Amino acid sequence: MNSKKNAFYAQSGGVTAVINASACGVIEAARAHKDKIGKVYAGRNGIIGALTEDMIDTSRESAKQISALMHTPGGAFGSARFKLKGLDESRTEYERLIDVFKAHNIGYFFYNGGGDSADTCYKVSQISKKMGFPVQAIHVPKTVDNDLPITDTCPGFGSVAKYIAVSTSEAAMDVASMARTSTKVFVLEVMGRHAGWIAAAGGLAGATPDDAPHIILLPEVPFNQRKFLQRVKQSVEKNEYCVVVVSEGAQYKDGRFLADAGTTDAFGHKQLGGAAQIIAQMVRNELGYKYHYAVADYLQRSARHIASATDLAQAYAVGKAAVEMALAGKNAVMPAIIRTADKPYKWRIEAAPLARVANKEKMMPKKFISSDGFGITAACRRYLEPLIKGEAYPPYKNGLPVYADLKKIPVRKKLKIDYKL
Amino acid sequence: MNSKKNAFYAQSGGVTAVINASACGVIEAARAHKDKIGKVYAGRNGIIGALTEDMIDTSRESAKQISALMHTPGGAFGSARFKLKGLDESRTEYERLIDVFKAHNIGYFFYNGGGDSADTCYKVSQISKKMGFPVQAIHVPKTVDNDLPITDTCPGFGSVAKYIAVSTSEAAMDVASMARTSTKVFVLEVMGRHAGWIAAAGGLAGATPDDAPHIILLPEVPFNQRKFLQRVKQSVEKNEYCVVVVSEGAQYKDGRFLADAGTTDAFGHKQLGGAAQIIAQMVRNELGYKYHYAVADYLQRSARHIASATDLAQAYAVGKAAVEMALAGKNAVMPAIIRTADKPYKWRIEAAPLARVANKEKMMPKKFISSDGFGITAACRRYLEPLIKGEAYPPYKNGLPVYADLKKIPVRKKLKIDYKL
Repeated sequence: MNSKKNAFYAQSGGVTAVINASACGVIEAARAHKDKIGKVYAGRNGIIGALTEDMIDTSRESAKQISALMHTPGGAFGSARFKLKGLDESRTEYERLIDVFKAHNIGYFFYNGGGDSADTCYKVSQISKKMGFPVQAIHVPKTVDNDLPITDTCPGFGSVAKYIAVSTSEAAMDVASMARTSTKVFVLEVMGRHAGWIAAAGGLAGATPDDAPHIILLPEVPFNQRKFLQRVKQSVEKNEYCVVVVSEGAQYKDGRFLADAGTTDAFGHKQLGGAAQIIAQMVRNELGYKYHYAVADYLQRSARHIASATDLAQAYAVGKAAVEMALAGKNAVMPAIIRTADKPYKWRIEAAPLARVANKEKMMPKKFISSDGFGITAACRRYLEPLIKGEAYPPYKNGLPVYADLKKIPVRKKLKIDYKL
Repeated sequence: MNSKKNAFYAQSGGVTAVINASACGVIEAARAHKDKIGKVYAGRNGIIGALTEDMIDTSRESAKQISALMHTPGGAFGSARFKLKGLDESRTEYERLIDVFKAHNIGYFFYNGGGDSADTCYKVSQISKKMGFPVQAIHVPKTVDNDLPITDTCPGFGSVAKYIAVSTSEAAMDVASMARTSTKVFVLEVMGRHAGWIAAAGGLAGATPDDAPHIILLPEVPFNQRKFLQRVKQSVEKNEYCVVVVSEGAQYKDGRFLADAGTTDAFGHKQLGGAAQIIAQMVRNELGYKYHYAVADYLQRSARHIASATDLAQAYAVGKAAVEMALAGKNAVMPAIIRTADKPYKWRIEAAPLARVANKEKMMPKKFISSDGFGITAACRRYLEPLIKGEAYPPYKNGLPVYADLKKIPVRKKLKIDYKL
């Protein structure tokens, strides 16, 4: 029995338009090596599914439905915001994890997530060895934040980037045509609490300084109200309108988020009005321009309908490579995307040791931000452009996308003790 | 010279993802009848372009660029929120309009807009006759609000409807996968100040009551906080999550907008936080659920990347039909879309007299709203479904849509007097 171990796959943290493509890559690659890997069990709601022994037997799903994961947004098996801490603090959880793995003869752990899950993955590999039931733990990269080190980009990011670039360019054409008598300033709020990667992608919509977006507000550049308003005014006076892309993480010099402006509502509750609203009202109050604003929120990271073909291919590739690395005996690694050329974009996949991945954030390099702080540089554009290339449309029926329809048959529990979260 | 009159085309009010397809229909149909119609002049910034004699000579654009209008969002020649009032109040404007038409030998007026522009169009037809320079005025329907009478639907609406239905279904999959440990309630705010057509389209995302969206808040149904919160709680308890689509026009029984909740910010300015934010905070305050919200704003009406093929075809068809009606000697009419079958959807175009179109709003019929007020009925679904059918993707280059690139060569001014707006 031990010669053919099962695999456990779980999704972690915020989901993306293409995280299920990574699931598809893992499951299809495992199915292609049935001689070496038993079944792939997926955690219902991520790692919680392992702790509570609540797993889905993916071997009961048809090849067609597994393949349909390629065009299905969200997390097909459920994800979780649940961080395992250090080995000492969270020893009970780690031990329970290994107990479950042992009970279900799981020798491979594929953890699909961002920085936190890379850390968990690393620790599972360490502790399982110590507990005498070594598990090969492979981290499958995923995060719209694009902040994992070593890898050229993180699957999920390219599709958000494409959505934001396309949406910015469409909305800009709308505002441009209304500006004479109506809206002059349009603000689009995008995700990115710590790094401005997604906001930067909005910059792809325009090639010259007069093109929209005229202003990008990045978390990396302290917000200066005077300079900002001056730039808005300049843009409206020159181009008749102004398009602003603002990161939800945009902040003042002292680290306060724009969105956290300390205002309270009628009930005395702190206003959580987003950055876009704050910025838009600032423009109206100080300059008197009519504004509109949009908050993309979950729409941006679930927009499978306009996913990047490059991103989709990479999401699948890291899932597949994770299985191949496991079969090659690797442990505590992450398949990283290595860029070998910009134009045309070329990349391959290499194993990056998790010790070098865990707990490191890749920030936007300074050379990607224009000297005035309001835009992106040619180097940034060169980096971002290939990531949004190609369209990969889902199939449609009656005007709506068709998604995977999984049976999600649970794996029979084997442990006597229920686990309380 | 009088035997071959020129045409004037103008876009009016909020633009749509497909208003330029109507422009394309007008221009291509006129070009197909060069023996009868001279040049098509487009108003820069809509009717303002006529008043200020600022017109674009579309005959200088290549056939390829005119055809590219089919996949170009926004208003290609600029639109305007500029309402001509009654003949007495706005006599100067009407007279100026006719002076410009006379100077440029314009015998056809194609006005592409919603209810207000139908009214203006009607008046131009009346006054031009009185002034001895009769102009055939044809209204080309357009509005995401879907509130014009007689016509089955208004070009522009089907594409917004598709965008909202697709986005709701994508975001719902995201929330569903996060609900166990994170966001439980997701609120999407959509356009529609007076009628709930766009919010209703969100309902297409789900087929059964347990499917998202679980709640639709329409302007037609007075908001009842107790009932709403009860429904949110039910949905979270049963499905683990709740998706709400709220119309920006959602209101209390006394007509106050949700978005107009009377809160003020730190500067004493009235908070213009949208309906989604108000609703989301209400859920958090009263039920304690973690929420996310998105505000689609201009993204929804400019989303040419996910336009409905049906809508696009209708937008082109009404433009083309407008020219054909003009050539058939019709005046003061609007090409209306007449539905002849639901499944498969069949429609034809008929001339509707503007006297019956102007100043009438088509509201959502009661039979389209479910008895609890939180959803749509089968009849509504039958009406909406065909309107979002079919995808009509723009061409892409390097990951971004390619749009029309017009030269916009101005028509030489002929009048001695400049017009001050």
